[in-house]
Amino acid sequence: MLYLVRMDVTPPRDMDPEEFARIKAREKDYALALQRDGRWRHIWRVVGEYSNYSIFDVAGNDELHRILQDLPLFPYMRIAVTPLATHPSDLAAQ
Amino acid sequence: MLYLVRMDVTPPRDMDPEEFARIKAREKDYALALQRDGRWRHIWRVVGEYSNYSIFDVAGNDELHRILQDLPLFPYMRIAVTPLATHPSDLAAQ
Amino acid sequence: MLYLVRMDVTPPRDMDPEEFARIKAREKDYALALQRDGRWRHIWRVVGEYSNYSIFDVAGNDELHRILQDLPLFPYMRIAVTPLATHPSDLAAQ
Amino acid sequence: MLYLVRMDVTPPRDMDPEEFARIKAREKDYALALQRDGRWRHIWRVVGEYSNYSIFDVAGNDELHRILQDLPLFPYMRIAVTPLATHPSDLAAQ
Amino acid sequence: MLYLVRMDVTPPRDMDPEEFARIKAREKDYALALQRDGRWRHIWRVVGEYSNYSIFDVAGNDELHRILQDLPLFPYMRIAVTPLATHPSDLAAQ
Amino acid sequence: MLYLVRMDVTPPRDMDPEEFARIKAREKDYALALQRDGRWRHIWRVVGEYSNYSIFDVAGNDELHRILQDLPLFPYMRIAVTPLATHPSDLAAQ
Amino acid sequence: MLYLVRMDVTPPRDMDPEEFARIKAREKDYALALQRDGRWRHIWRVVGEYSNYSIFDVAGNDELHRILQDLPLFPYMRIAVTPLATHPSDLAAQ
Amino acid sequence: MLYLVRMDVTPPRDMDPEEFARIKAREKDYALALQRDGRWRHIWRVVGEYSNYSIFDVAGNDELHRILQDLPLFPYMRIAVTPLATHPSDLAAQ
Amino acid sequence: MLYLVRMDVTPPRDMDPEEFARIKAREKDYALALQRDGRWRHIWRVVGEYSNYSIFDVAGNDELHRILQDLPLFPYMRIAVTPLATHPSDLAAQ
Amino acid sequence: MLYLVRMDVTPPRDMDPEEFARIKAREKDYALALQRDGRWRHIWRVVGEYSNYSIFDVAGNDELHRILQDLPLFPYMRIAVTPLATHPSDLAAQ
Repeated sequence: MLYLVRMDVTPPRDMDPEEFARIKAREKDYALALQRDGRWRHIWRVVGEYSNYSIFDVAGNDELHRILQDLPLFPYMRIAVTPLATHPSDLAAQ
Repeated sequence: MLYLVRMDVTPPRDMDPEEFARIKAREKDYALALQRDGRWRHIWRVVGEYSNYSIFDVAGNDELHRILQDLPLFPYMRIAVTPLATHPSDLAAQ
Repeated sequence: MLYLVRMDVTPPRDMDPEEFARIKAREKDYALALQRDGRWRHIWRVVGEYSNYSIFDVAGNDELHRILQDLPLFPYMRIAVTPLATHPSDLAAQ
Repeated sequence: MLYLVRMDVTPPRDMDPEEFARIKAREKDYALALQRDGRWRHIWRVVGEYSNYSIFDVAGNDELHRILQDLPLFPYMRIAVTPLATHPSDLAAQ
Repeated sequence: MLYLVRMDVTPPRDMDPEEFARIKAREKDYALALQRDGRWRHIWRVVGEYSNYSIFDVAGNDELHRILQDLPLFPYMRIAVTPLATHPSDLAAQ
Repeated sequence: MLYLVRMDVTPPRDMDPEEFARIKAREKDYALALQRDGRWRHIWRVVGEYSNYSIFDVAGNDELHRILQDLPLFPYMRIAVTPLATHPSDLAAQ
Repeated sequence: MLYLVRMDVTPPRDMDPEEFARIKAREKDYALALQRDGRWRHIWRVVGEYSNYSIFDVAGNDELHRILQDLPLFPYMRIAVTPLATHPSDLAAQ
Repeated sequence: MLYLVRMDVTPPRDMDPEEFARIKAREKDYALALQRDGRWRHIWRVVGEYSNYSIFDVAGNDELHRILQDLPLFPYMRIAVTPLATHPSDLAAQ
Repeated sequence: MLYLVRMDVTPPRDMDPEEFARIKAREKDYALALQRDGRWRHIWRVVGEYSNYSIFDVAGNDELHRILQDLPLFPYMRIAVTPLATHPSDLAAQ
Repeated sequence: MLYLVRMDVTPPRDMDPEEFARIKAREKDYALALQRDGRWRHIWRVVGEYSNYSIFDVAGNDELHRILQDLPLFPYMRIAVTPLATHPSDLAAQ
């Protein structure tokens, strides 16, 4: 099941930059692992913003929430989730 | 080059339903053709709304505008375009 | 899987009232049937507005979209869908 | 009488994590107690956000305010309350 | 129980002015009757707008919705309802 | 002359709680005094929020501003003022 | 007493242009008369928009509402009223 | 003096397409003439929307308003004007 | 050339009150001087808010920006500028 | 390829002013260099705000993101990017 997720990151101003860098590194590993297992299907950078749009393919709402909640950068993110359905004009659905 | 595009359709209340059905059929053919040639990479239905999120892979801004402007449903759409860049955590970009 | 759905109805000004009454009657039958089979778990009226909040329990995004799209009042509705997950403080989840 | 309540939590950045964990534990006990006595009917997690939608069944406005105001996490919450009425299509109201 | 209700009226452009005048006359009688029985406590005009703020004192959500829904101008109104509770600084509550 | 005033309070996170309690006590005395002399006609708590709606009956704009500006909690408030006029359906105005 | 008033005009599409021109002429006479008697102190065009910002100097809320409500263009306007008070840095108030 | 102007066009649904085409042709001639005399410095299409961003270089507010108000498409436009000043990092201003 | 300018002040919480009082005093002197030379034509307090609406009469965009940028309170302000043109119903413009 | 970019700067309150001045100096050098090589085509100050509108002419989305992300003031900016296409009324496109 597919979801479009927008993530806007606001780095904490009062955190030691090296600590934040470690969090970002853990975030990247986390994202790469989920992409390898196919659940994080796409991740794109929004031009000009510390934000991304991603497509998740997961079992359902609960699984998606667990994945998002465990993002190392979750405490510094504003997240918006849009559930997606198959579009009648989707070539793959013909 | 990638763009996220949201399209919200507001069907014209005063149009003959059959005429609108013809426009929608042309829209579907148009979308399928662009998906076949790879420029309209993804199209997903927003759950509960007469809207879609799509990913376009085109040469640039001008080509995207031509494609969108020629959508048969363009006169009945509100469209928002978000330019996308490669994300540092994109598995494919490692 | 649970979703919170808000529906705002804007009756068409130029429709014969009796025809709209028939659509509303079909809407009610449709809602009652889905409540009987357990997929439309709750429906509440928003005080003062021609709107409702509902809870749907369905297999996933695609099923929810089919249900909403087939609402007789769908063409006269603005719909917002919020996917829900189990809350850690939910008594039933302890 | 029913109310839909949305709660968005913004954890205080400058609080000792253990202290905040204690507040969250008190919040959970508080929520479980109110669910047991039937006033806090439902609580669902909004996917991807530190937020919940809840349904309260209380005597009226004043009681609901007391309950919400005494939430241990109240100082870190933004709350929106929507009063609900019986919907004409509610199966239980036929 | 008290509620603050904002009503914004958008007169229908295509209605015979006399018919709309009759609806407004029925609206006024309806409002006066509810003020006499104490349920419509206050009604004030928002300066410069075809809108009012009103205070209702009713048994609860369902009664308020019935009252609002039966407003003759209801089909031409956008309504926002804010449930009110006793304020700790309210002189009458000391 | 009547005004509807909404006040949203955001307590300062970094203030000693006792000092803020003293400010709140002064605020309450201030509100009670103005209610006794009739200028602060009504004060209601917005359910679930650290906010109130109030009705002021004062000589005019300047007096209202002085009253609001001197609120002990003014520095921690967001205030919105709506000037009110007599409504043609007001029972008292018939 | 001073008020800042913003007026946004949306001309009715389905009205005979000459009839609308007559309404605009009446609007102009109305505005000129109020400027001559000092109650409509200033009127400025918002660059690029069929809108104006005006300053009214009137006895109070009720008078302002009567003036605005009697604007010939009132049915085609969206109006926002901001009550103004004397500013401590106003040269005239020193 | 420079201004950034955004123009959003909403074509009238009930107008004969040929008549609208004539208005658009007059609009184009109007725009080309102003570009030739240097007052309409830039005009860009917003990708995906019937909108443009333009840069005007005119004597001041009044001249800009006259130019915009005389746009053949003005009645079908929503316009937003942002006055621009010289930026300290502007190469030309060094 | 005329501009309507709204200024919203958010006092810095962590500044020594006396230092902020000095900045406010410089702001007042600055405003009085510009009013004396006719460029700061009007300044009004928005009732209930630490905000003002002002009318500036200056040579153009660049001069207005210099004036606003040099406001002692500029770092603590959110400013919105609306360029104004002569209104056809302005008595002075007849 | 052209993009309109709006940048709103919020200076960090808790940074040593001299350090921030150094960042601004680096920002200026960065902007001047990009203007010299033609990629940063225009930069204008938004009157009254610590903001600018700029026009970039770059190869595409990825290049624009790299340029924006490397802005010394990037951490203190909110950025909005609008992709632009050739307008049919653009004199240069005739």
